[in-house]
Amino acid sequence: MFLFTVRFKLIAVGVILLLLFAGCGNGNSGQSGSLGSGQDLESVAKARGLTPADLVAAAKTYMPTGKYDEYLMFASGGHSGQLLVIGVPSMRLLKVVGVYTPEPWQGWGFSKDTKKVLAEGNPRGQELSWGDTHHPALSETGGNYDGEFVFINDKANARVAVIDLKDFETKQIVKNPLSYSDHGGTFVTPNTEYVIEGSQYAMPWSGQYASIEKYKEKYRGMVTLWKFDRKKGRIIPEQSFAMELPPYWQDLTDAGKLVSEGWIFINSFNTEMSTGGVEDGNPPFEAGASQRDMDYLHVINLKKAEAAYKAGKTKKINGFPVITLATTVKEKILHFVPEPKSPHGVDVTPDGNFLVISGKLDPHVTIFNFTKIKQAIENEKFAGKDDYGIPILGFDDVLEKQVELGLGPLHTQFDPNGFAYTSLFLESKVARWTLGGPWAEKHKKQPWALVDKVSIHYNVGHIAMAEGDNVEPDGKYLVSLNKWAIDRFSNVGPLLPQNFQLVDVSDPDGPMQLLYDMPIGIGEPHYAQIIKADKIKAWDVYPEVGWDPATQSKSKNAIQAGKEKIKRSGKKVEIWMSAVRSHYTPERVQVKRGDKVIWHITNIERAKDATHGFCIPHYNINLSIEPGETQTIEFVAKKAGVFPFYCTEFCSALHLEMAGYFLVKP
Amino acid sequence: MFLFTVRFKLIAVGVILLLLFAGCGNGNSGQSGSLGSGQDLESVAKARGLTPADLVAAAKTYMPTGKYDEYLMFASGGHSGQLLVIGVPSMRLLKVVGVYTPEPWQGWGFSKDTKKVLAEGNPRGQELSWGDTHHPALSETGGNYDGEFVFINDKANARVAVIDLKDFETKQIVKNPLSYSDHGGTFVTPNTEYVIEGSQYAMPWSGQYASIEKYKEKYRGMVTLWKFDRKKGRIIPEQSFAMELPPYWQDLTDAGKLVSEGWIFINSFNTEMSTGGVEDGNPPFEAGASQRDMDYLHVINLKKAEAAYKAGKTKKINGFPVITLATTVKEKILHFVPEPKSPHGVDVTPDGNFLVISGKLDPHVTIFNFTKIKQAIENEKFAGKDDYGIPILGFDDVLEKQVELGLGPLHTQFDPNGFAYTSLFLESKVARWTLGGPWAEKHKKQPWALVDKVSIHYNVGHIAMAEGDNVEPDGKYLVSLNKWAIDRFSNVGPLLPQNFQLVDVSDPDGPMQLLYDMPIGIGEPHYAQIIKADKIKAWDVYPEVGWDPATQSKSKNAIQAGKEKIKRSGKKVEIWMSAVRSHYTPERVQVKRGDKVIWHITNIERAKDATHGFCIPHYNINLSIEPGETQTIEFVAKKAGVFPFYCTEFCSALHLEMAGYFLVKP
Repeated sequence: MFLFTVRFKLIAVGVILLLLFAGCGNGNSGQSGSLGSGQDLESVAKARGLTPADLVAAAKTYMPTGKYDEYLMFASGGHSGQLLVIGVPSMRLLKVVGVYTPEPWQGWGFSKDTKKVLAEGNPRGQELSWGDTHHPALSETGGNYDGEFVFINDKANARVAVIDLKDFETKQIVKNPLSYSDHGGTFVTPNTEYVIEGSQYAMPWSGQYASIEKYKEKYRGMVTLWKFDRKKGRIIPEQSFAMELPPYWQDLTDAGKLVSEGWIFINSFNTEMSTGGVEDGNPPFEAGASQRDMDYLHVINLKKAEAAYKAGKTKKINGFPVITLATTVKEKILHFVPEPKSPHGVDVTPDGNFLVISGKLDPHVTIFNFTKIKQAIENEKFAGKDDYGIPILGFDDVLEKQVELGLGPLHTQFDPNGFAYTSLFLESKVARWTLGGPWAEKHKKQPWALVDKVSIHYNVGHIAMAEGDNVEPDGKYLVSLNKWAIDRFSNVGPLLPQNFQLVDVSDPDGPMQLLYDMPIGIGEPHYAQIIKADKIKAWDVYPEVGWDPATQSKSKNAIQAGKEKIKRSGKKVEIWMSAVRSHYTPERVQVKRGDKVIWHITNIERAKDATHGFCIPHYNINLSIEPGETQTIEFVAKKAGVFPFYCTEFCSALHLEMAGYFLVKP
Repeated sequence: MFLFTVRFKLIAVGVILLLLFAGCGNGNSGQSGSLGSGQDLESVAKARGLTPADLVAAAKTYMPTGKYDEYLMFASGGHSGQLLVIGVPSMRLLKVVGVYTPEPWQGWGFSKDTKKVLAEGNPRGQELSWGDTHHPALSETGGNYDGEFVFINDKANARVAVIDLKDFETKQIVKNPLSYSDHGGTFVTPNTEYVIEGSQYAMPWSGQYASIEKYKEKYRGMVTLWKFDRKKGRIIPEQSFAMELPPYWQDLTDAGKLVSEGWIFINSFNTEMSTGGVEDGNPPFEAGASQRDMDYLHVINLKKAEAAYKAGKTKKINGFPVITLATTVKEKILHFVPEPKSPHGVDVTPDGNFLVISGKLDPHVTIFNFTKIKQAIENEKFAGKDDYGIPILGFDDVLEKQVELGLGPLHTQFDPNGFAYTSLFLESKVARWTLGGPWAEKHKKQPWALVDKVSIHYNVGHIAMAEGDNVEPDGKYLVSLNKWAIDRFSNVGPLLPQNFQLVDVSDPDGPMQLLYDMPIGIGEPHYAQIIKADKIKAWDVYPEVGWDPATQSKSKNAIQAGKEKIKRSGKKVEIWMSAVRSHYTPERVQVKRGDKVIWHITNIERAKDATHGFCIPHYNINLSIEPGETQTIEFVAKKAGVFPFYCTEFCSALHLEMAGYFLVKP
């Protein structure tokens, strides 16, 4: 049916083009002459087995040379440890930003400054060279992405990274002082006052051992509120604090917006406090943590939490201020709402009025009304308390609606037409359904109703929509982040790519249309955010020659052309080198074995894209030095010999000649 | 002109569709109804500013869901240190294969076996965590890609890697025993008897220091012939040898084929033996190495070299057999041919008759006739000798033709229609020109003539064509590997992506058509090879449960479901664990601080794509365990505490519950 209608459209295209160009030479279609076969749409479509719908999808995603994508998608690189930047709708990978994993193309983890950023994320001296990136969060102003920063957590080691979108480089990694695992991060408050990091698997806090038998007493969850200083472009650990949470496995998080601004919502599972041990006859976690029909949505009053922190009502744990469970109860900071079943996603609607909860084992989404939650808390109308004294609100007291969508609902995003979209993992589908309430009423649709589903391939986790978790969503495109590929792509061995599928959701009255399959040949993206590309105001080249990206200011080690030098002082050799198409100055650097070498290189180019590399064989050094940048490497010249250094970034016709000799005398 | 013709074709499409579907409901094109706006080709093209030529290009590259690409491109990942696998014509990145740089998604560099492969590539105990991958070479049978293996060199540290295309995993890294830098690698002989690795920057061989003043006496180039054992899937260093070469900077390499099989050709530059030192008033390398009008094509008789090696006419250097320059001269193994100017690419034509030389500073390609070279060598008709006694053939004696193509010619590939294609770096174009000789004569074209050029964006280095350096090239597609992007893509900061452009070269009588821009957001691809996708016979899942990819056989540490165990013996704890959707057995592993932990995990799944991950926080461990695979990690439990391990590869609805606790008692 759908295909047919598109075919009719194609007829219209032909007719219209016929009218437009009728005067240009009827019958000329036969004169293939110089173009030969394969150059016309008809024979291409026939030869490649494309349907009319395929042609429309191709036209919707194809990006002619030099045209720019309308959106940029910031996607987690999963266990690659990196951040992916992808153009939408062309679905082309524009950049892999080095975050937790060293990446030599960018020199990430090879220069002095980038080694330092990575080292800051190392727990107690343990070097980590990977991360499990999960949830990128673009910085927001007034609940909308502002294009200035992006944050991303490492679930595997409980860390948060700050990436500056002026140069798309990671500037900071903070290690959580309490937990080894996070999942409820990163999410930001509507003006990026805080970057939120919530734990996943409960554990005795950092450095402590406690028997699994003491789980209820000794194991804990947490949420950390990292204070962000936009001007400095850094998280300020000294102005940050955490809250102790029960040893449920806290999961996804969202910050309130508009009416619910100042509140934080965190899902949890394993409120059974199952501790595994299938080898001893216990139920495995997958069963043990899925026994109860309800777990707890954590509702946190951020203003009260902040007040408690500022009033010093905290306890220092591992040197970090923590609001204990007892204080949490006393100060009425935390309340629970029962939520069904094996909950995963919690997503606040654009108007801030509703929380959409997905339980992996419940075919419904459950919508809570924030005003009702607030009233129940104010009226202290509780249905009970949990083992740790946290008040539990009555499910029916705060419920707005349950909408049956299908099997395995996970995550929800929003569009400007009053629709919500929820991924259905077990069905491999995405459901479109209507919101209710004042904001959605203007669309004059039946509220809280399933409208349509689109099949994806296969096993969708998160979905991302254009500005789809903002107060003003853009709609148009939905990207489905699929966990399995199975038969979708050419065989590249037993480890298959994950994949993204692009879906056109621009028509509020028509079906959703699957447009494009994008394999992800690196890592497993967990979540992504899609921002209007024109909000990104990145630099083409660094603002002035001699720029230090670590401080975003001029480096004291910058050098001008003609001022290059080598300074020796005892066992220390310091080099100030320039790089320009197509030579380094100096070209010969001689030291003695055992010398400490401090080597500054300034790329004195001002032309866009005139990046130079710099590598030294056998010393495990590679730098990317972008136009205007000054970089430093430090090492001890342990190995004698002659080491030809060269430019690793193809810069000119005589790029191969951009080389020199590093001579280490025995 | 071109656009117009395509427009006429579009008219034809419309007319034909009109005829085909006329009976289905004329005038229905107006009933947009349920489809709404934006769903038909015309309005999509208009809204997105697509020309008819764009629509044809879109149709030629678009891949509908579940359809497979016709070709796979194996591209170097440049200084990312990895290998990229890309579908053609869709230009989608299917896999980043970990080679020289640890990559956690694949567990590459985290498991015991993969750590071992990386360590084998470390020179004298220096840990290297990156590479500058340059030239991938698919294994060949009879001069055609056979789809079994791919090799790739690390220019920055002179190493060669072997990747098995049964599972797309790196199996071996060999470190060159002589040089720190290679560029003339990897290339294979027509039946993959040898993998060729030639040096780039001359230097005193490994571990020696020699003053730059002694350049002519002490610095050397080399070529290494690595013997490949196809059955073992490994390079056999004990059956490999090298040749000493003068301290010119050897560059690209190609192996002879058909009539020239048994010969190797290596370009060189800096036969001036310039040693740089711009800081001391010397000419910089870019000028010093570009003074002479001619450098030397190295013509090596591989049969004679092999005979000399087998006869023991070698000298051991760093424990490796090397044919010295003196022996080379005596045994008549090496001859030179003068080649203009700043030579870069040397490419043997499909019939093996001709060598195409590109000099970066000469607007021609220079074609040498192999038969003439062979005759001159047999007749000992020399024009002179170089400083090292190597005989030099007369340029005019072996020249077939020079064809003027344009500025900055670099690399040449071939198609089945008698055309050669050469990248022009300075013009940012690719030239199509005709070959001559018996093989090309059947195409009845004027031989040795420039036909056409296509513009690319910008600064093309290598080009790759479908099976374009085989004895039977496929043609159809050409990929241009571009070094600069400048204005082609959305702004992602000062470090821009390199990019590939796909060009349709299928029409021997029409123009070449630029089809697609693919940004490469990781590393700088140097070279690529494109193989028919159906030649790759990779495994969907490992052949049996308990497979060890390091030996491609069943692991002695494999475990069946129900046989999982933990064995303690003194300070050693050995674990045999199984992984299956969605739990590990055992789920709790307890050790004492300081214990040596040996942990084997078998993924007992048989379903395609049912991969499980395994990570331990703060221990810097992440594994990818594909269906059937057994992996081992070994470490000392240095840190006390409770470490929640979990599956990092989203495997099922209860994937988050696939976790356990690793408890380390103080």
